Amino acid sequence: MKRIGHGGDFFTAEETAAGPVLDVSANVNPLGMPEAARRAVVESLDLAERYPDPYCRALRAKLSGCLSVPAGWMLCGNGAADLIFRLALAERPKHALLVAPSFSEYEAALRAAGCAPRFYALRAEEGFRLGKRFLEELTPETDFAVLCNPNNPTGQLIDPGLLREIAARCEQNGARLLVDECFNGFLDDPERNSLIGLLGERSRLVLLRAFTKIYAMPGLRLGYCLSSDGALLERMAESGPPWAVSSAAQAAGEAALSDRDYLERTRRMIAGERAFLAEGLAALGLEVYPPEANYVFFRWRGARGEPLSARLLRKGVLVRDCGNYRGLDSSFLRAAVRTRAENERVLAAVGGALWEAEQ
Amino acid sequence: MKRIGHGGDFFTAEETAAGPVLDVSANVNPLGMPEAARRAVVESLDLAERYPDPYCRALRAKLSGCLSVPAGWMLCGNGAADLIFRLALAERPKHALLVAPSFSEYEAALRAAGCAPRFYALRAEEGFRLGKRFLEELTPETDFAVLCNPNNPTGQLIDPGLLREIAARCEQNGARLLVDECFNGFLDDPERNSLIGLLGERSRLVLLRAFTKIYAMPGLRLGYCLSSDGALLERMAESGPPWAVSSAAQAAGEAALSDRDYLERTRRMIAGERAFLAEGLAALGLEVYPPEANYVFFRWRGARGEPLSARLLRKGVLVRDCGNYRGLDSSFLRAAVRTRAENERVLAAVGGALWEAEQ
Repeated sequence: MKRIGHGGDFFTAEETAAGPVLDVSANVNPLGMPEAARRAVVESLDLAERYPDPYCRALRAKLSGCLSVPAGWMLCGNGAADLIFRLALAERPKHALLVAPSFSEYEAALRAAGCAPRFYALRAEEGFRLGKRFLEELTPETDFAVLCNPNNPTGQLIDPGLLREIAARCEQNGARLLVDECFNGFLDDPERNSLIGLLGERSRLVLLRAFTKIYAMPGLRLGYCLSSDGALLERMAESGPPWAVSSAAQAAGEAALSDRDYLERTRRMIAGERAFLAEGLAALGLEVYPPEANYVFFRWRGARGEPLSARLLRKGVLVRDCGNYRGLDSSFLRAAVRTRAENERVLAAVGGALWEAEQ
Repeated sequence: MKRIGHGGDFFTAEETAAGPVLDVSANVNPLGMPEAARRAVVESLDLAERYPDPYCRALRAKLSGCLSVPAGWMLCGNGAADLIFRLALAERPKHALLVAPSFSEYEAALRAAGCAPRFYALRAEEGFRLGKRFLEELTPETDFAVLCNPNNPTGQLIDPGLLREIAARCEQNGARLLVDECFNGFLDDPERNSLIGLLGERSRLVLLRAFTKIYAMPGLRLGYCLSSDGALLERMAESGPPWAVSSAAQAAGEAALSDRDYLERTRRMIAGERAFLAEGLAALGLEVYPPEANYVFFRWRGARGEPLSARLLRKGVLVRDCGNYRGLDSSFLRAAVRTRAENERVLAAVGGALWEAEQ
């Protein structure tokens, strides 16, 4: 079977590496799953003998309180990727505009829905930041656009003013706009960089969030999207199986939201460790793009012969080789921000690999 | 939000009923989840902090041994319904033939893939058994057909000879044939009624199975399909998100397969209780269609005014009202076979409701 070509493919890496592997290819919260969420999974075991609530009522009620968004504006899914596929199938756009490089499931979902998207190319010489050029690419025939903010894998934020201008333009043109905010919770200023306050006035806007990364539970599969367009959410619900979210994921999500202090601890920890990892990589002579979330995007110009990712895997460190992203090659890499000890291990491995490569 | 209209919508029923609800609307094994599977979920909690293995390698290896089918012929999904949607999207048929009444997700998936299916009508006067007429409906332009064996909700098996003839005809015409065997494990003779031995010579054939019902874990979401058409399985994998199956479901599935005695105990128990429930319902004057799996399909001819299902819910028993199946109405009902005490409670409630209805 073809490899899926994403970060976090730990089970394949384990087959390749000699010893234990430190996985920094998946951008998961290093604090680990909240203790309350782990307990909730165990306590939910009796519920596993029933079909899960297809409407995720308890979870949406809890989310509604946390986000101050009506429960009717929410749809939960089997991870954020499930919702991307449902949205593409519900909309079946003809003229979609994506950004490259970015998360590859937007394109995969559009292709499954029969749409070949156009791409706005982020440029290395512009630091991979989204420019005003994007507004020009939003032609009147564009019926679907996706932005990831901060973008994955490049880590750059979209200017809040430009983002609002894009949302207004999409609303005006009747184009659906998906803004993936899966990494919002890792930012220093999540509120300033979210469009959540715009949902009421922008019915073409869909926001995507996930428990996966911020609550460190990718194995349980839980994402949600927000939109004030109720008819769209119904079409999305019908574009896939009715029981998308397991009872374990629903219970874990609800419990995770109760741990209010967790998000604050996450932000504090990530802010410090992000700087440590980014400065360490820069000190080793790598080109580091200023990180905003819980991962660092960097480049090794000396990429001749064996890619740095392969050298690192031999040292037991699994980074995300960005060679299979549109517009990137294996000289670009992404590493998740982890605990201090793990970040030190990453820096030591990178230092060692660079030294060997230069021999 | 619209109601999904399936059995097992316990959370909606709970909102309606006065007291605790006995759910016999979902056809789940009354033995409950194997103890080993419950333990495996707890032990897999650390894995939840990683992305799940998108290829379900350990689970497929285990299944391969149990079923004597190559691991490369298997695709796991987020419940059987996920695989139905993936198959419809991967195939995008133009002329699909379904059976009515049957599980409604076949039609939902085909519609999501842009196909409006035709229906072969099962007839009450033929005891809802599939007839040779089906072969005539399989016209040369038919590119997709689905059979559920035993059929849900009617419970009837397809004659093994006819089923093989249908598989041969589909192969000859190049039509994809999906046979849903989700209830196979509850039959007295599972082997005689499975097409698993035909997979090698029939590359158009896809078999669908689930852990949901037989291992009583609908809350965890785990299904799989079998086909010797590897290219089809790849297209199905690409027709939805790559991480379909949670780490908890993978671990539970693998552990459930280790409990070899569980299936035998299930069959023995179901055989006895199925007869008890069916005979009890017949003794109350209901029209009972001979059950083969773990549910009993029956009819109450006195259905004027309030449906029997509503009367039963007031008595704390949630049965499957078949009124929203194509070709059926609320005079048809389905009840899962449960433990002796639960079956007695169902019979008492039905007896009471019938008595009240006749006053």
